[in-house]
Amino acid sequence: MSDALMEVLSGIDRLEGAEVSARATSYWDASPMEAEAIYLPRSTADVSRILAACNDAGRKVVVHGGRTGCADGVASNAGDIVLSLEKMNAIEEIDPIGHVAVVEAGVILETLQDAVADAGLFLPMDLGARGSCTIGGNIATNAGGVNVIRYGMMRNLVLGLEVVLPDGRVLSSMKRMLKDNAGYDLKQLFIGSEGTLGVVTRAIVKLEPAVSQRETALAALSSYADVTALLSLAKARLGAALTSFELMWGDYYRAVCDGLGLRAPLDRAHPFYVLIETEANAQGANSEAFMALLEEAMTSSVVKDGVIAQSEQERREIWRIRDDFEPILREKPVYLFDVSMPVTDMDGYIDKVRRALTVLADDAVLHVFGHIGDGNLHLFAHPGKGAAAAPERRRAVEECVYEPLRHIEGSVSAEHGIGREKKEWLSVSRSEDEIAMMKMLKKSIDPNNILNPGVVFDL
Amino acid sequence: MSDALMEVLSGIDRLEGAEVSARATSYWDASPMEAEAIYLPRSTADVSRILAACNDAGRKVVVHGGRTGCADGVASNAGDIVLSLEKMNAIEEIDPIGHVAVVEAGVILETLQDAVADAGLFLPMDLGARGSCTIGGNIATNAGGVNVIRYGMMRNLVLGLEVVLPDGRVLSSMKRMLKDNAGYDLKQLFIGSEGTLGVVTRAIVKLEPAVSQRETALAALSSYADVTALLSLAKARLGAALTSFELMWGDYYRAVCDGLGLRAPLDRAHPFYVLIETEANAQGANSEAFMALLEEAMTSSVVKDGVIAQSEQERREIWRIRDDFEPILREKPVYLFDVSMPVTDMDGYIDKVRRALTVLADDAVLHVFGHIGDGNLHLFAHPGKGAAAAPERRRAVEECVYEPLRHIEGSVSAEHGIGREKKEWLSVSRSEDEIAMMKMLKKSIDPNNILNPGVVFDL
Repeated sequence: MSDALMEVLSGIDRLEGAEVSARATSYWDASPMEAEAIYLPRSTADVSRILAACNDAGRKVVVHGGRTGCADGVASNAGDIVLSLEKMNAIEEIDPIGHVAVVEAGVILETLQDAVADAGLFLPMDLGARGSCTIGGNIATNAGGVNVIRYGMMRNLVLGLEVVLPDGRVLSSMKRMLKDNAGYDLKQLFIGSEGTLGVVTRAIVKLEPAVSQRETALAALSSYADVTALLSLAKARLGAALTSFELMWGDYYRAVCDGLGLRAPLDRAHPFYVLIETEANAQGANSEAFMALLEEAMTSSVVKDGVIAQSEQERREIWRIRDDFEPILREKPVYLFDVSMPVTDMDGYIDKVRRALTVLADDAVLHVFGHIGDGNLHLFAHPGKGAAAAPERRRAVEECVYEPLRHIEGSVSAEHGIGREKKEWLSVSRSEDEIAMMKMLKKSIDPNNILNPGVVFDL
Repeated sequence: MSDALMEVLSGIDRLEGAEVSARATSYWDASPMEAEAIYLPRSTADVSRILAACNDAGRKVVVHGGRTGCADGVASNAGDIVLSLEKMNAIEEIDPIGHVAVVEAGVILETLQDAVADAGLFLPMDLGARGSCTIGGNIATNAGGVNVIRYGMMRNLVLGLEVVLPDGRVLSSMKRMLKDNAGYDLKQLFIGSEGTLGVVTRAIVKLEPAVSQRETALAALSSYADVTALLSLAKARLGAALTSFELMWGDYYRAVCDGLGLRAPLDRAHPFYVLIETEANAQGANSEAFMALLEEAMTSSVVKDGVIAQSEQERREIWRIRDDFEPILREKPVYLFDVSMPVTDMDGYIDKVRRALTVLADDAVLHVFGHIGDGNLHLFAHPGKGAAAAPERRRAVEECVYEPLRHIEGSVSAEHGIGREKKEWLSVSRSEDEIAMMKMLKKSIDPNNILNPGVVFDL
């Protein structure tokens, strides 16, 4: 069967044997990649041929973008066919009037960000893996990142999409318009379905005007009620200019500042720290509003102390506390979680998780920060020194983190997706009928279950 | 069968006979409504019972919101069951911290706008039918309206959704988060599918901060190239503060000003007029940027003449030219179209339509304005005095308007949807494979084809 497949797919670049195992499984897993072959299509027609052939032969296909996903979505077995979009990496067009970019799926996010910036525009999608992740992967997983409060997730940036279905048919809707109500919006099905329904090959992405000015402040607060009060105030006073509202719990702030040996910009004793940032297209457009907001928040005692970045370097120093959580990862094992919930429930939720972890082990440690304007928290849970990094211990920690989400309509994945890692927990966030509907869609569109089987759910 | 249905659905409010025909078919069609009965559920459980019973009995169900849609989606026949959401009109909650509203589908848009404003927030969805249309209808049709350039379409405002499937199952995902990647985002299937896949019963809608200041200007331009130059400049200088960029072709401007007997704020001789508006959350935040933009555009001769509204009354007078197209409707018949395309193609497209109409009749008239920041044009086509308002003549005009969209990846419906009116033209904007995929979804989710059959496409 394999020889027949090779025959049918001759002419398409292929890696085998040592070329496969020379690759790491993913950014997170350094073990050698396993696959029968990695196909490297150069065109949508190639992708179509590969999928049609695999579908006919009933062969499983694992789709690879930049392999930086955090939910174990790309692991393959020795018998699998891997389809990597890395050679479909053309930026076909950047339209400065229509404010769109036309790209192939394999373009690296940072490459596109730079090309768009060179054209005097701004691609709002940004996340830590920017140097490795691909636009196709961003679309397949509905990536989030650091600009969601202002610009939305990847779904909001996709105007046109080309997808190859499991049977090789090409569903092309390469449209450039914000408004298009001609029948069902099929692209929505594929965005965020983690490569289980089709392979994204090309896209048209919405661009934004370049940002010419940013204002950044760090504020210390004494209660969670003050945090939500500041969020409401910031939204009211800054509107669309508000681009970041990042909350750090006090122990996170202390762990990072101490661990990195930083001169903490604000006293370490506060229970909460908020990093707040605005952007404007015209120099100075929001400076006054930003200053007025901070003054108002301090006068009314919502904010206890604060500091405003006076230079790009000071801005970077503030952001480093939020970004550089390396000290928190030192005590092994540490499990990273990505949950979302109504902003009003966050404080109570974190208390619950903390208590549950303490029951698990006296010396368990939890560090938390969140894009709380988006409803998104990231948790770093260390189950205590005595704990082995065994699957059972990990599962116990997952239970502490995921179970309390059930009663507050929270999500087990805000932005990372389900992959293989969280499928056991999907039912915390989705009803039986919802999961049945997902499976029905999968079976209808991929009846032979060849595309990323076992990702999101098992059939 | 009907008696059996009545029996099963006893206890749910129902209109019959004269109570049915006392209603108009729709806002656009005053003829008496036809239906076997209109059911008026008061709860999601009622909707579930109605659909399950109709599905078991193989009865067609036509779903009614405010019946203001522009694509003939609500017409029913004497044997149909109509399901009207009008009694499910509770605003369950407005959360001033989470910035969401929890509503039943039958809430009138304007009622919700007002309640949200009373809570000190802003619901960005707005359109002409605000006093009659419902949130459920806005969601089912993915409504657009006047704030899309800044806030997106209805799809972008829906965080949580509850839908009843044709077999009566309730698919409830009443989430409040901007970020939720727990499996397929099923709500996207139902938003914009025009009631053919499920009945929207409740929703959680994203709210925005109140707007405290608007700046409005009218500019005259001498070429379409200048129009796109001004659009690029306005986006670059104003960013998210830009909320409207409405283009009127010269003959539209003249027809409205002359027909209404208005003192035209700018000379009537220009080929293009742009209404440009910004908003800010803080008093004065964007005034300077707005003035600087207009000065720059006039200095560089992109704008030939301009006027800035100095009061709310002057603002209304400018908007009236854009909004009050009643004079254009005087020469009967006039057909209204709602198309979208890349902004760079609009000028050439309008030339093509104009030429095609002239071939149809020497005295055919075309008036055009558009939300061009959204890629959306509205066309008013009068096929000439000699023309009867016959279906054939209408079809000929449709051909003039829709056929040129084929080659520019345009859409036959930007915001109004397909309904029954445009299904013949769906193939201009969607490929055979796309339409096949839509039908496959419909057959999978509504195997008995009971929900709004004949809307979007025929099976």
